[in-house]
Amino acid sequence: MTDPQTAIDAEADARAATERDPRVADRTAGEVQEGIPFIGAGPGDPGLLTVTGRELVEAADLVVHAGSLVNSDLLTEYCADAEQVSSIGKDLEALVPLMRDAYEEGREVVRLHSGDPAIYGAAVEQMDALEHEGVPTYVVPGVTSAFAASATLRTQLTLNGVANHVAFTRPQGKTLDPEEDHIGEFVGMGDVTTCLYLGTHAVAETMDRLIDAGHDPDIPVTVVYHASWPDEDVIEGTIATIGDRLDEAGYRASAMVVIGDAARKAGYERSYLYDGFANGDEPADSQQEADD
Amino acid sequence: MTDPQTAIDAEADARAATERDPRVADRTAGEVQEGIPFIGAGPGDPGLLTVTGRELVEAADLVVHAGSLVNSDLLTEYCADAEQVSSIGKDLEALVPLMRDAYEEGREVVRLHSGDPAIYGAAVEQMDALEHEGVPTYVVPGVTSAFAASATLRTQLTLNGVANHVAFTRPQGKTLDPEEDHIGEFVGMGDVTTCLYLGTHAVAETMDRLIDAGHDPDIPVTVVYHASWPDEDVIEGTIATIGDRLDEAGYRASAMVVIGDAARKAGYERSYLYDGFANGDEPADSQQEADD
Repeated sequence: MTDPQTAIDAEADARAATERDPRVADRTAGEVQEGIPFIGAGPGDPGLLTVTGRELVEAADLVVHAGSLVNSDLLTEYCADAEQVSSIGKDLEALVPLMRDAYEEGREVVRLHSGDPAIYGAAVEQMDALEHEGVPTYVVPGVTSAFAASATLRTQLTLNGVANHVAFTRPQGKTLDPEEDHIGEFVGMGDVTTCLYLGTHAVAETMDRLIDAGHDPDIPVTVVYHASWPDEDVIEGTIATIGDRLDEAGYRASAMVVIGDAARKAGYERSYLYDGFANGDEPADSQQEADD
Repeated sequence: MTDPQTAIDAEADARAATERDPRVADRTAGEVQEGIPFIGAGPGDPGLLTVTGRELVEAADLVVHAGSLVNSDLLTEYCADAEQVSSIGKDLEALVPLMRDAYEEGREVVRLHSGDPAIYGAAVEQMDALEHEGVPTYVVPGVTSAFAASATLRTQLTLNGVANHVAFTRPQGKTLDPEEDHIGEFVGMGDVTTCLYLGTHAVAETMDRLIDAGHDPDIPVTVVYHASWPDEDVIEGTIATIGDRLDEAGYRASAMVVIGDAARKAGYERSYLYDGFANGDEPADSQQEADD
């Protein structure tokens, strides 16, 4: 196979040299397409996989999954008879030929990422490398763990009068420089629900940095471990206390850390939409104008 | 029924006065519970509803849905035989007794929100009002439209070396004061993919404000209209050009506006995870530490 970074760059050059990928216009999200689907497995509970994701996984001969990050109950329930390969510990040089060869042999191949592939998924580099090998790919979106955490907490990440915005972010570390760490900026805005991915192990030092930067130590921080899994757990605290509480609980991975008042569902106001002035518009996640 | 804001405040007082809702600890996200489920319908395509969401909608006698914001194909496919009521134009004083009475009559009631209820969903105020009336409620998370837009664009919202963070936000307007509009701050960070909800009608003025504030007019802006719907459409431009292009296309609602390079999938770098140093960890949406 072609060296993966060379393939990534070649695909980028091809995009720059031509019009955009015709499939962007020709295909819609959710549509079953030719090629290997990169499926968002959702947060863990098998019931939080999408209907289309489930159909594709059930029909698969080879399921390449994210190891312990995908709930094994989901694999047992939907693809017990398929060949299952964990991607853990495998680099692109191993994963790409594995998927390519199976696809070229006519087998149904799916790639199962945890949550939604758009969020810290590293799906695109595999997709580009496969496309470069002549194997079409596409994405089937999924439910991200922050939404499962919010469901567990019986709240919303946006909440009228409390949180107007949501940030999905991660703390500085081996692959994120300190100047690329925006947690303090998000928290400082005061009306952002800040969701930390990939940061369970770094909660204490992240909170210390927030305190050093002068943020209110009493800002609520709620940690949802393994949202939607059978061993799901919730730990509540503040910027000042959550580090110790998490240490005590012993979780070093696989938790969603939510900073801000929305996790506590405190003091929100009835929205404009459902008050007596409801104006024929709608509160809305999905792509619409509610009220302006 | 109790006045809704009174009910909201009473529920808040109850939360403050007691330990947290025992269901937070006792139930997991995705679990089917007693009461009325507030279900994320996903972005539009019926196949992007979750498996559990579908089961609940199929079993429902009464489906209260977000009108034209939920794809009618989904209703036709999953609950053609149920009573269907649009929430459009109905305030809490109408919606709450409607759902309460049906529930108390022993009917299976579901509330279907577009996307995921945690994002600009206004679900919690309905849930609190229902709980105050003695009707239990819970959330079944869903796929948000930004993830469908990302799937359409065959990219990720986070992309190594391009975008380290994601913001879900909305522009100032009738219900968001100018000082609560953080779009310029998110764009100014340089490595955030900024997803505008509820802003299709306000794209031109939002972009004008970004230019006035000195942001690079060449920053890419991609608009995905009706992501995952049969009439899905993609319009590409920049901060300088997208307003006119969107005017030309004529969309005034129901689009996801993505600001930043990630939508173009340009110039990203192979991640640490899938290079030769793959270390037994994983790239990850779902609640895990990838690499630090």
